[in-house]
Amino acid sequence: MSNIQVSLSKTKAEMESVAITDNIRLAEDDQSVIIIDQVRLPNELVYKSIDNLEDAYQAIKKLEVRGAPAIGIFAGYAIYMLSKKDEEKDFASFYESFIRNKDYLNASRPTAVNLSWALKRMDKIVNDNQDKPVKEIVKLLKQEAIAIHNEDIEMCLKICENGLSLLKDGDGVLTHCNAGPLATSFGTAQGPFLLAKARGMNIHVYADETRPLLQGARLTSYELQKAGVDVTLICDNMASIVMKNGWINACFVGCDRIAANGDTANKIGTSGVAILAKHYGIPVYSLGPSSTIDMNCPDGDHIHIELRDPDEIKNMWYAKPMALPEVKCYNPSFDVTDHELLTGIVTEKGIVYPPFDVNLKKLFNE
Amino acid sequence: MSNIQVSLSKTKAEMESVAITDNIRLAEDDQSVIIIDQVRLPNELVYKSIDNLEDAYQAIKKLEVRGAPAIGIFAGYAIYMLSKKDEEKDFASFYESFIRNKDYLNASRPTAVNLSWALKRMDKIVNDNQDKPVKEIVKLLKQEAIAIHNEDIEMCLKICENGLSLLKDGDGVLTHCNAGPLATSFGTAQGPFLLAKARGMNIHVYADETRPLLQGARLTSYELQKAGVDVTLICDNMASIVMKNGWINACFVGCDRIAANGDTANKIGTSGVAILAKHYGIPVYSLGPSSTIDMNCPDGDHIHIELRDPDEIKNMWYAKPMALPEVKCYNPSFDVTDHELLTGIVTEKGIVYPPFDVNLKKLFNE
Repeated sequence: MSNIQVSLSKTKAEMESVAITDNIRLAEDDQSVIIIDQVRLPNELVYKSIDNLEDAYQAIKKLEVRGAPAIGIFAGYAIYMLSKKDEEKDFASFYESFIRNKDYLNASRPTAVNLSWALKRMDKIVNDNQDKPVKEIVKLLKQEAIAIHNEDIEMCLKICENGLSLLKDGDGVLTHCNAGPLATSFGTAQGPFLLAKARGMNIHVYADETRPLLQGARLTSYELQKAGVDVTLICDNMASIVMKNGWINACFVGCDRIAANGDTANKIGTSGVAILAKHYGIPVYSLGPSSTIDMNCPDGDHIHIELRDPDEIKNMWYAKPMALPEVKCYNPSFDVTDHELLTGIVTEKGIVYPPFDVNLKKLFNE
Repeated sequence: MSNIQVSLSKTKAEMESVAITDNIRLAEDDQSVIIIDQVRLPNELVYKSIDNLEDAYQAIKKLEVRGAPAIGIFAGYAIYMLSKKDEEKDFASFYESFIRNKDYLNASRPTAVNLSWALKRMDKIVNDNQDKPVKEIVKLLKQEAIAIHNEDIEMCLKICENGLSLLKDGDGVLTHCNAGPLATSFGTAQGPFLLAKARGMNIHVYADETRPLLQGARLTSYELQKAGVDVTLICDNMASIVMKNGWINACFVGCDRIAANGDTANKIGTSGVAILAKHYGIPVYSLGPSSTIDMNCPDGDHIHIELRDPDEIKNMWYAKPMALPEVKCYNPSFDVTDHELLTGIVTEKGIVYPPFDVNLKKLFNE
C-alpha cells in the first residue's frame, strides 16, 4: 500500500485548468441547481437550470445527470434548493415538504446508492437540528450539500494523484466507460489523464466506446478531447488489437462495488478488458473511492448484476432498429472482474496491492 | 484431422428447410440478378432486381450484397447477365463490352478477393472459347456462374456438417460477425446452427453485435431468428460475462485469411473472443473454406490490416453523432487471432487440429 502526500490546493488548481468544473453547481441566488445536460453531449453543451422537484426528478431519471458521485452531489444541492423555497414555513410543514421531496427524488433511480446516501445525510441534518429555527436548518442544509461536494472533490484529487503516480510520460492507457469530471467532480478512472495534461505529460488514452450506452464515446472522449488530452476512440472489440499493437502500458477502469476479496463490479466489459490485459501482460488498475469497497460482501458472487432493457442494444441512439423486435437480448449493466486479474486498487486512501483480502482490511484499519 | 462423409443432397434439403436460400439468384429470363438488399435488413426484406452495370456496381459498393463468397456469386451472375444482353454482337465488340463491364465491377470493392477471383474465372471462359459463337460463349458463362454458386453451396454444406459434428444438443455457442446464408450460400461460421435446427437439435447461440458495422445484430440475429434458432444478441463487451456465466460450450467464428501457421485474420474483435475463451477454458473454432488458407503467408504478421473510416464508429447508424468531429478513431476492420488460441480450423476438407503448420500442409497434400 502506498499513499502520496500532496498539496491538494495545487492539485485542485491544476485540475481546474483542464477539467470541466461546472457540471453541477448551485445558482448564486440558491433558487436553482445548474447542470450540464449529459444527454445532449457530445453534440451540444447545454446548461440546464433545475428549480423544481419534478425537473430534479427527471434530471436523474433521464440521465441528464449521471455517475454515482455526481448524482449524490446533485441530490444534496437539489434538496437544499427545494428546502430554501420552504424556509418561511413552520417546522412541521417544512419537514413534511422535505420528506415528500426526498422520497420523490429517491425514487428517480432506485439502484443509485449515492442518491439515497446523500438524501439520508441531508435528512439527518434536519432531524439533528429540529430545535433550531427553520431558516437556520436551511443554512445547515446548504453547508451539508457543499460538504458532500467538497468531500468528493478531495477524494477525486487524491485518486488523481495516486493514479498518476502509476504513469510515466509517453504511456498509452486503455480506459472503459466514464468516470471523469462529468461523473464525479474531478474524475476517478479518467482523472489522472487530466492531471497528467495539466502537468505537461503526454499520455495516449484509448477510450472504449462502451456499448450499449456509449459513455466512452459520448462522455470520456468528449472530456479528454476538450482538455487537450491525446485520446483515440475505439469500439470495445478493438481493445485486443490495440494491446497487441503494443500501444497500451496500463488499463485504468472505474469501480461500482468492490468485495472484501478484491472482486470488482464495474461497467459491463471491464472483466473482458482485464482478461485481455492479463493475456498481453499489461497491468490493470481499478480506481474509485474507498466507499465503494464493501467489506460485508465476501466476493463477486455476492454482487447482484442489474439487467437492463434490450431496447438499449437494439434501438437506442439509432435512426432505425438494428435487430428484429422479437430477437432476445442479454443486457447486464455490470460485470465482475476477478481480483486475480487486478494489479491494484487505487483509492483516495492509497493504492492497494494483492493479497487484496488482507490489504483491503488494512486500508480500513490504518 | 477428420472429415465426415455426408450425403450432400440430404444436407442441402435440410438447410433449405431453415435457411434463406434466395439471397442471390438469376431471374428466369436471365435479364437480371435478384438480390436481398442487405442494407435494408433487418427492418425490411426487400428483393432488388439488378439489370444493368451501374446498379450491379452500386450493389457491391453500397454493401447491398456483402460477404466475400456472396460477392463472388453475385459477380458471376452479374457479368453473365450483362453478357447475355450483348449476345447478338460480334466477338470483338462483345469482348470489348465484357472487359469494360468486368473492370468496372472489379473496381466496386478493391479489397474483395472473391470479386476479382470470380470475374477472372468468367474472363477465362471467354478467352478459352474465343473460337466459338458468341451465343455459345454466353451459355458457357451461365454454366460457369452456376458452377461458382454450386461450388460455394457444396463447400458450405460440408463445413456445416463438419462444424455440427463439434456440437451436441443443448450446447451454447458464441459467434461473432456474419458468415451465414446472406454472406455465403448456406453459411460457414453460422451454418452449423441452421443445420442443427433442421435436425431438431437445440443450440443456444449468443451473437456478438459486432461493432462498428453491426453485422451480428443486423444479419446474424436476423438469419437465426427467422430460422427459429434460439439466438440471443449481446454487445461485444458482454462476451466475457456470458462465458463466465457458464453458458458457452464453444465459439464459432469465421475467417478471412489463414496463414500457413494457423494465425487467422477475421472480423475485428475475433482475437478478443479467442483470448476470453482461452481464459474460461472454452474451445474456439474458425470455420471457412480451404481457399482462405494462404500457404504463401507464413504468419499473422504478414497479414495487412485494413483501416476504415472513423465515421463508422462515430456517426454511422446513429440519429446524431456520438463523439466530437475532432475526436480521433482507430478503426481496423480485422484482427489476427494467434494460432495458439484456436482449437481447430473447420474447412470443407475436414477439421484441422494443431500443430497447424504441419496439419494445414497435410490438408492440401491429401
